[in-house]
Amino acid sequence: MKIKQDTRFLIIGLGLIGGSYAMGLSKAGYSVFAIDQEQEAIDYALEKQMIVKGACTDDEGTVIALIKQADCILFGLYPSAILPWISRYQQYIKSGALLSDVSGVKAAIVPSIQAALRNDLEFIGAHPMAGKEVSSNRFSDPSIFKIANFIITPTEKNSSAAIAFMKEFAHLLGFHHTAILSLQEHDRMIGFLSQLTHIIAVALMNTSDNTHLAEYTGDSFRDLTRIAKINEQLWSELFFLNKPVLLAEIDAFSKALASLRKALAEDDEEKLKELMRLSTKRRKVFDQKQEEHN
Amino acid sequence: MKIKQDTRFLIIGLGLIGGSYAMGLSKAGYSVFAIDQEQEAIDYALEKQMIVKGACTDDEGTVIALIKQADCILFGLYPSAILPWISRYQQYIKSGALLSDVSGVKAAIVPSIQAALRNDLEFIGAHPMAGKEVSSNRFSDPSIFKIANFIITPTEKNSSAAIAFMKEFAHLLGFHHTAILSLQEHDRMIGFLSQLTHIIAVALMNTSDNTHLAEYTGDSFRDLTRIAKINEQLWSELFFLNKPVLLAEIDAFSKALASLRKALAEDDEEKLKELMRLSTKRRKVFDQKQEEHN
Repeated sequence: MKIKQDTRFLIIGLGLIGGSYAMGLSKAGYSVFAIDQEQEAIDYALEKQMIVKGACTDDEGTVIALIKQADCILFGLYPSAILPWISRYQQYIKSGALLSDVSGVKAAIVPSIQAALRNDLEFIGAHPMAGKEVSSNRFSDPSIFKIANFIITPTEKNSSAAIAFMKEFAHLLGFHHTAILSLQEHDRMIGFLSQLTHIIAVALMNTSDNTHLAEYTGDSFRDLTRIAKINEQLWSELFFLNKPVLLAEIDAFSKALASLRKALAEDDEEKLKELMRLSTKRRKVFDQKQEEHN
Repeated sequence: MKIKQDTRFLIIGLGLIGGSYAMGLSKAGYSVFAIDQEQEAIDYALEKQMIVKGACTDDEGTVIALIKQADCILFGLYPSAILPWISRYQQYIKSGALLSDVSGVKAAIVPSIQAALRNDLEFIGAHPMAGKEVSSNRFSDPSIFKIANFIITPTEKNSSAAIAFMKEFAHLLGFHHTAILSLQEHDRMIGFLSQLTHIIAVALMNTSDNTHLAEYTGDSFRDLTRIAKINEQLWSELFFLNKPVLLAEIDAFSKALASLRKALAEDDEEKLKELMRLSTKRRKVFDQKQEEHN
């Protein structure tokens, strides 16, 4: 399917992802509107022709007018901010509109959003696995999607039309790969691949004050800790919203670490080598799958 | 000082680092000789004009002839292989020759090598902090030194002439930065920056069989586990030779990880954010020092 050219997109929250969505959609010829808490973000988006029109949250009249005419509303907000927004503004949304998000957690938010939503509206979860080490729409750049996965997390409440729309949306924005996962599959995947890695990077930086060693750092340390510069507001929210999964992942990792420590402490060279061979073998599978995939 | 142009270098072990040394020194106009266990490695080095002459370990006569005429002997061997080599061959080394190594651990090997060495010879520890994910001299490339640190680890047994020689050697090969550390300082630095990071990467791959998630991996997971493909022979040796330091680092890291887990488990949002702010602050210092340094 093609997304109709007269579809009006409304982006709530012009951060890095919201801004990059706006830029990509505008370049593809769609009319994009936006609401943000900061007038500056709106002004910048207008100046760069990322949007046709925008409103600051304060400007209630314009906000409502923009909501009323939107066919597709995309939340670039923190996960916990979506439900309150819907409670407050859904009365103004056009019947039949499609809503989606960019949140990095799903099971904790999608069912409650879908339950709260009017019956003539549809919300479908999505997670563009893209980002930069910086936020703000000043760094907007749809090319970040070129190497990224777009995960769609439909529930039994979603229509096949909505799934097809989101697939086409991902295609339009140039995502490298699109996948469909259940809410739980998504959260387990992200708990391991993303959340656990961020916890590890933070723990490594917190191990001791080794900042005096900065001049000696090689690639491995830099790579492991690149994500240790972390937005604590967003990530504490993501961690708490996926708490049982993340706790289980931390425990499984701690167990793997304890096995290595034990082999080292007990001079069990064979065991230590066996554990490294397992790691090497698994990591090679990742390389292979990555290559097949690209 | 300048290293005299007629200095004859002998490289023992033509792996990635030994081969890159050979290539860099030959390009700088020095006469480089080599001994390796594999005839193939010698043949390749001759073909690529990395060395003037080489000998396979089997060829005792040529090996001894090469040792006798060397002014500077560089060990590209595994750390534990150096002392046995010296015991066997030092009788043939020219009086006044300088010996050095490339080992990633120091306190466990340098004092015993220096103690075993003839009084008219000098051994000075060095660690070129460079590498690739591959071994073998087929990947030799002195440009890997351009972004790398060269650490010299002199003891009270070393002369200022030897330290000056190694500094000039690092300069000649194009190392980015040269530093002088004690054996213990080196091992603590490497225990944290390199060994702990490799242990963490291996533990992360061993956490569970998540190879089916390969298609969803983003940069953070790929970066953290790049070093999880690991040469278990070399690294188990490096880990055991720095065991007390590494065990202490693993324990400090585990404690930092446990703090994060506790904050998450107990819904202590303020504590979790505080730990992330500490991580961010420290990581920014690394970025700054890195920038100043470059």
